[in-house]
Amino acid sequence: MYRVGVIGGGQLARMMQVPAIELGIELKVFAEQDASSAHQAVTQVGDYTDYQQLSSFAQTVDVVTFDHEHVPTGLLETLEAEGVKVFPGPAALVFAQNKSLMRSRLQDLGLPLPAWATASDPEGIEQFIAEHGPEIIVKTPIGGYDGKGVRVATSFADVSDWLDQIETLGGELLLEQKVPFVRELAQLVARSPGGEIATYDLVQTVQKDGVCAEVLAPAPMPVDTETAARIGAEIAEGLGVVGMLAVELFETADGKLYINELAMRPHNSGHFSIEACNTSQFEQHLRAVLDLPLGSTAMVAEAAVMLNLLGVDDENTFVENYPRAMKLTPDVKFHTYQKSARRGRKMGHLTLLGSNHPQLLETAHSAVAVLYGKS
Amino acid sequence: MYRVGVIGGGQLARMMQVPAIELGIELKVFAEQDASSAHQAVTQVGDYTDYQQLSSFAQTVDVVTFDHEHVPTGLLETLEAEGVKVFPGPAALVFAQNKSLMRSRLQDLGLPLPAWATASDPEGIEQFIAEHGPEIIVKTPIGGYDGKGVRVATSFADVSDWLDQIETLGGELLLEQKVPFVRELAQLVARSPGGEIATYDLVQTVQKDGVCAEVLAPAPMPVDTETAARIGAEIAEGLGVVGMLAVELFETADGKLYINELAMRPHNSGHFSIEACNTSQFEQHLRAVLDLPLGSTAMVAEAAVMLNLLGVDDENTFVENYPRAMKLTPDVKFHTYQKSARRGRKMGHLTLLGSNHPQLLETAHSAVAVLYGKS
Repeated sequence: MYRVGVIGGGQLARMMQVPAIELGIELKVFAEQDASSAHQAVTQVGDYTDYQQLSSFAQTVDVVTFDHEHVPTGLLETLEAEGVKVFPGPAALVFAQNKSLMRSRLQDLGLPLPAWATASDPEGIEQFIAEHGPEIIVKTPIGGYDGKGVRVATSFADVSDWLDQIETLGGELLLEQKVPFVRELAQLVARSPGGEIATYDLVQTVQKDGVCAEVLAPAPMPVDTETAARIGAEIAEGLGVVGMLAVELFETADGKLYINELAMRPHNSGHFSIEACNTSQFEQHLRAVLDLPLGSTAMVAEAAVMLNLLGVDDENTFVENYPRAMKLTPDVKFHTYQKSARRGRKMGHLTLLGSNHPQLLETAHSAVAVLYGKS
Repeated sequence: MYRVGVIGGGQLARMMQVPAIELGIELKVFAEQDASSAHQAVTQVGDYTDYQQLSSFAQTVDVVTFDHEHVPTGLLETLEAEGVKVFPGPAALVFAQNKSLMRSRLQDLGLPLPAWATASDPEGIEQFIAEHGPEIIVKTPIGGYDGKGVRVATSFADVSDWLDQIETLGGELLLEQKVPFVRELAQLVARSPGGEIATYDLVQTVQKDGVCAEVLAPAPMPVDTETAARIGAEIAEGLGVVGMLAVELFETADGKLYINELAMRPHNSGHFSIEACNTSQFEQHLRAVLDLPLGSTAMVAEAAVMLNLLGVDDENTFVENYPRAMKLTPDVKFHTYQKSARRGRKMGHLTLLGSNHPQLLETAHSAVAVLYGKS
C-alpha cells in the first residue's frame, strides 16, 4: 500500500483525497486544527514547526508532501537526514519560500525574468525606481501569498513600514520592474524523482486584487506554448522540483513571456484539470511524489473555464445556494471546501467544460451570481 | 451543510466520498467493520440489523442511503415513521430485495419481462420447464448477488437443495424463461424525491461467471435507446425509487429488450460515469437523495470502456503493479478499493475514454494483464 502524508489541512490537501480514494492510496493529513478543510483525512493535529510532531507524523507514511510551502526547510533537512522522503525537498522548496533566492536561481538558469534587484534601504529602492520606474513592484521575499506582500511603489515611502521591520522580512526587499503585460498565464508541470516530466496545456489566468479569479484552458491563441512548456520544464529540472509546479507568467504585447511567481504544489490555476484533463493536478502530484509513472495531461474537452468562489461575507458558504445554482446550470461542476465563511476567502471554485470560452464564462458567471446570492 | 449517511462501508460508499468532497457534503458511513473500503468516512461501526444502532446513526445525518440493499425494510419503515429521511425508501427497496415481488410489480406496470412464475415444489418447476424449457433460470427471490442465487435448470433436481431449505429463501423460488439474448445492456437512471429524472446513455455490459466484467459506453448501435430510457424512467417512477437505479436488460436478436435485474443504488455498470459523464452516478445519487437538482448526464467523450478488476489470488491487490501498468497506459484511470485480496472479489476497476471501443478495450486489457501479473 502507498501512504502519502500531507502537511497542512487546507483545500489542496482536501482535493488530494479524491485521487487517493480512486487509486487506493492511503492519504494522511497533519493539520493545524480539527476543523480543517481536509478533516476527513486528518490523522494528526498540531504544530508543523515542532520537529517532534513533524517526525512522528512522517513515521506513519512513505513520503511527506505539502498543502502549503510554509514548513521551515531546516526541519525538512533534518527529516531527510533521518531517511524520510520529502517531496518537494527542502533544496527545492527554499526557492518557493524566498523570492530573492528564486529570482537569483532562475537568472542563473538563463530564464526570462522581469528586471529585478534587492534592496534594504531607501537609496537602493530609489535607484531602482530611477532605472525602471516611475512605478516598480516591491515584494517581501518571504511570507507573501495571494497578493499579500506585494505592492506597487513610486517611492521608498510606499514601503517604509517594510523597511522599518526589514529583519523580520528576510533582511531585504525584492524590487521588480513592473512588466507591461497584456495578460497572465500559468504553466503547470509535474516532475517525478527520476526526472520524468509531464506538461499541462498552458492556461490564461485572470487575477482580481492579487487573487486568481478565472482560468481559461487552454490559453486562447496565439500564444507561445512551446516557450512556456520549456520554461516550466527547465524550472522543474533546474530547481529539482518533485510533484506539481505552477509557473505564473506575464505575456507582453510582443508575445514575450516573463516569469512572475512559482508554486511547488497543486495550484489554483490547475483546478480546471480535475474535470478537464485526463490526469488532474492532484492525481499527478500523488503519482510524482510516490515515484509512479506520470499520467496523461491531455484535455478531455476543447475548452474549460474555472472560476474561484471567494467569500462574499461571513455567512454565505455557497452550499445553501446549491438548489438554485444547480437548477440553473446542470453541467457546472461545483467545488466547495467546507471552510467557514469570510469575506475574500477562497471558499470553493467551479469548472465548466465545452468548446467556447466566452459562452462558458457567461454560463459559469451566472452560476456564481446565484451562489453569491446576487441573482 | 448537507449530511448524508450511508449504510455499508463497501466500494460504493467509498466512491460516494469523491463527490461529497467536491461538493462540500459531509458523508458519514455506518460500516460493519473497521477495515472497510470506505474507512476514511466511517463514523460508526456496528450491526445495521440492530435498530438502536441504526437509529443513533440516522440522528447524525440529514438523509440515510445505502451501499447495499440488505437492510431489513421493517427497520427502515420504523426509521421513516420516526421522521428520518431514507432514500431509496423501504417501499421501493422491497422490490430490490425480493425478485418475485419485483417481477410482479413490473408486470403490473406493463413492462417487458421474461416469462416467469414462482414455485415452491418440484411439480411447479417441472411444469414451467415443460412450458419454457428445456432450460430455465431459477433464482432465489432474496439474498442473491453477482451470480449467486441464480442457476440454469433442466429439472427440479438441479435446485433440490434450495427446495429443501425453501423457507429460509423466502418460501418460493422464482422461475424465469431463459431469454435467448444476444447481449446485455444496462440503463442507469436517477430520480429525486420530487420526481425529477435523469437518464444516462444506455451501456452494454459483458458478464463473466455472473459478474460484470466489461462495460461499453454508449452501447454500440443499433440499439433501441428510447425504449431503454423509457423502461428506466417508468421503473424509477413506478417503484418510487429515489437515488440511482440500474436496470439490467437483455437484448434479443430482433432488438427487443427484456428486464433482467434491478439495483437501487450506484451500480457497477455505471462506474464509467466517474470519468465519462458530466455528472457521475455517485454525485447524481447524492444530489438525488438530498433533493438537489440533478446534474447533466452527458458523456464528455465519444466512447468509454470500464473493466472490472477481480481478485486473482489472496495476495495481489493490483496496487503493487501500478508502476508497470501506469507506464504502459498513461491515459487509463485506475480505481482500487483498498479491499483485502481474494480470488474473484471485486477489487477495483479501470476506465478509459476515447472514440473507438475495440481500440479502448485492447489498451485497457493490456493494463489489466499487467495488474493481474500476467504480462
